[in-house]
Amino acid sequence: MDGGRVYLVGAGPGDPGLMTVRGLEVLRRADVVVYDRLVNPALLDEAPPGALRLFAGKRAGDHCLPQEEINARLIEQARRGRSVVRLKGGDPFVFGRGGEEALALAEAGIAFEVVPGVSAAVAAPAYAGIPVTHRGLSSSFAVVTGHEDPAKERADVDWGRLATAVDTLVVLMGAQSLPRIAAELVGHGRSPDTPVALIRWGTTEA
Amino acid sequence: MDGGRVYLVGAGPGDPGLMTVRGLEVLRRADVVVYDRLVNPALLDEAPPGALRLFAGKRAGDHCLPQEEINARLIEQARRGRSVVRLKGGDPFVFGRGGEEALALAEAGIAFEVVPGVSAAVAAPAYAGIPVTHRGLSSSFAVVTGHEDPAKERADVDWGRLATAVDTLVVLMGAQSLPRIAAELVGHGRSPDTPVALIRWGTTEA
Repeated sequence: MDGGRVYLVGAGPGDPGLMTVRGLEVLRRADVVVYDRLVNPALLDEAPPGALRLFAGKRAGDHCLPQEEINARLIEQARRGRSVVRLKGGDPFVFGRGGEEALALAEAGIAFEVVPGVSAAVAAPAYAGIPVTHRGLSSSFAVVTGHEDPAKERADVDWGRLATAVDTLVVLMGAQSLPRIAAELVGHGRSPDTPVALIRWGTTEA
Repeated sequence: MDGGRVYLVGAGPGDPGLMTVRGLEVLRRADVVVYDRLVNPALLDEAPPGALRLFAGKRAGDHCLPQEEINARLIEQARRGRSVVRLKGGDPFVFGRGGEEALALAEAGIAFEVVPGVSAAVAAPAYAGIPVTHRGLSSSFAVVTGHEDPAKERADVDWGRLATAVDTLVVLMGAQSLPRIAAELVGHGRSPDTPVALIRWGTTEA
């Protein structure tokens, strides 16, 4: 046990093979794993049998644990001298709220390490045969969330400007807002002939 | 040897710990490794001692091997029944020209697998303490190349539209064009007070 430390680890997009070497290393000697719904259960089996496993929930509109509660648990476990892995789908800083956790840990004086992960934004299209950039076709891509914070007064994402600003547009968690997003993009100048792929459970065998 | 197969593998942004488990697995039983300049030498040591190592070069303005030549070597080695790892910095499909290699392999009838990697676009900022998204501050990010193809007649990247379309803007290989890019962005409405980070050799100890 190296104890008293939190690792904010990106578990990758689903395929356990896309976990990083460093992520797997800290997971295999974790005392505590705090994991999200989108994390592949096969990865949880990599933690020591005696490790405490805490489910943090996190799905659109149904956060089992509020973020403040997750932060508090990470801090509490680390203060007990434990090695805590916060295992998140994709990358911790791509809509993973890893920044908020990092801030809370820093404010509490807890040592932490960020272990980036393979983002579904790039890997899910790749497994579907789609490169997000391609010479002569796409020299830019943007990643946005289709699931906006309902508590916000103004929209987070400016679909009008995005419509023609980049070649490839990746919308994460966009299924529920799909008709609205498509209408916004085409209404602001994106060609109605733009090829589109809808990917669900990318890189997994689900 | 499982032979006659090409793996287009993202080596991650520099820190060898950010290589994926699957990438390391295929690298450790490779017969041939074709690698770029940006790949960490420590990763090359993971290939079997007897593996053939081919340097593909690839730096801005100095492509040691033309892309067509790289494609031809991948095909030639795979046709000899070898397990070929094409090891690329970051992710193969984020300005890695992996799409072109995949097309060439498909046209030649060579079996191949894409192993996505952690992109420097997200991980280099993360190691520098910067989340590309953050609740209440950034709900979108775009990734563009600052090094455009000099052979192209029109600009690939529309800096004017990009200037205000996304919250976080990640420019890869942008050092040479930095003054021009900054002027374009501010000239098109991006606030001159926008915080900026310049990251070189991100995630490495260089």
